[in-house]
Amino acid sequence: MKQNIYDNNTFFEKYKELRARKNNYNNLLEQPNFFTLIPTVKNKVILDIGCGMGDFAAYCISQGAKHVTGIDISSNMIANAKKRHNYEGLTFEQAAFEDLTILDGTIDFVSSSLAFHYIADFQLLVKKISMALCEEGILLFSLEHPIVTANKGNESWITNEEGNLLHFAVDNYQNEGLRTQNWIVDNVIMYHRTMSTILNTLIENGLQIEKVIEPIPTKEAVSNLPSLHKEIRRPSFLIIRAKKVKN
Amino acid sequence: MKQNIYDNNTFFEKYKELRARKNNYNNLLEQPNFFTLIPTVKNKVILDIGCGMGDFAAYCISQGAKHVTGIDISSNMIANAKKRHNYEGLTFEQAAFEDLTILDGTIDFVSSSLAFHYIADFQLLVKKISMALCEEGILLFSLEHPIVTANKGNESWITNEEGNLLHFAVDNYQNEGLRTQNWIVDNVIMYHRTMSTILNTLIENGLQIEKVIEPIPTKEAVSNLPSLHKEIRRPSFLIIRAKKVKN
Repeated sequence: MKQNIYDNNTFFEKYKELRARKNNYNNLLEQPNFFTLIPTVKNKVILDIGCGMGDFAAYCISQGAKHVTGIDISSNMIANAKKRHNYEGLTFEQAAFEDLTILDGTIDFVSSSLAFHYIADFQLLVKKISMALCEEGILLFSLEHPIVTANKGNESWITNEEGNLLHFAVDNYQNEGLRTQNWIVDNVIMYHRTMSTILNTLIENGLQIEKVIEPIPTKEAVSNLPSLHKEIRRPSFLIIRAKKVKN
Repeated sequence: MKQNIYDNNTFFEKYKELRARKNNYNNLLEQPNFFTLIPTVKNKVILDIGCGMGDFAAYCISQGAKHVTGIDISSNMIANAKKRHNYEGLTFEQAAFEDLTILDGTIDFVSSSLAFHYIADFQLLVKKISMALCEEGILLFSLEHPIVTANKGNESWITNEEGNLLHFAVDNYQNEGLRTQNWIVDNVIMYHRTMSTILNTLIENGLQIEKVIEPIPTKEAVSNLPSLHKEIRRPSFLIIRAKKVKN
């Protein structure tokens, strides 16, 4: 199923508001950790899956990338990306990863920030990425952590009668697949996969795990966005860097 | 800290009773999955860390291993192991892994079943294992899953007033280190480490991740030990196989 929630205009407008805030989970937690694992991009050919409004793709161009293709299933996102960023060597396409045709081992670096949990067929996704990557090419992606996606759609933070947080609720971990949640709008679809499925799928497709991050916020980040203190209690995100070793 | 709970005689006697039952978590869940990842042992030199009563070490000898060293910190365990298994090529030693002196890259296969969560210094443990392994040598180990160790010592399965299970409680995930639990006797010490710490420590010590298992019980296992149905809701164990690639 190709979900395209970002072309729901109510969702998209509210999402833009959320991202426009300086102090959000992306800017304070996910992106700083994601950036620590970016390989050299100078003179490299890059594919960004779920490119959104194109800021990361444009950043890679600013750092000397030879060519960056940003794909996103949402026409809203691609329209915004094209409006915001117009540089030589930068291409944005409205496409689902399933439609990817660059499968000839010419990509040096595939990046994806917080998009893979929207994709139903993780096996096919990773297979296509592996085909797209050159030998020694890098895949860097972030997604919602399996601890969080397992029981998505149900009550997650459990509080006592006084409203104090007691713990985070995990359930249904081994039942992979579709979850619905109410995030910005009702019934946003996402997919839960276990940690072992995520790692083994990479390995079976010739991608060697290089580094795994479960982001911890800095003290400064927590002072800017106090709800981040909960990240010590359970991780929201998972970031993995892997290297293509063989087909 | 070198904990030696298995030399607490009350603990040890009760532990033996537990293990003597055919239907336990080791026999029905951990061991069947562990065994799927064992490399060829014929003519191989093997080190089993936390060998307990020596059954796995003896199994390797029965499969044609050249030499197996089983180490365990508990004199109770080593005494039992020596009593149960007396074969050529099989050596049992009472030793903590910290005392390991086989660090010359001569080991083909290091195994360890449900022992690493008792070891305080995981970084040193993995460093020594990596030094002990030959190139292409295999490390296979199981331990309690980080989802379970995170909040160890506190209430884990949350029930409603009728006693029905609601969910599993995760908390304190990013605070690694000592946990105490009441298992068989009070105040058994173990150590929590995050998934990322476990994986990155292997990788940083030249051990390439080959396979990760979060065991799911078979229907037959659940019918023999009904409490195993909870394993669908959250995994008890984590099993990892890794290959030595370089120092």
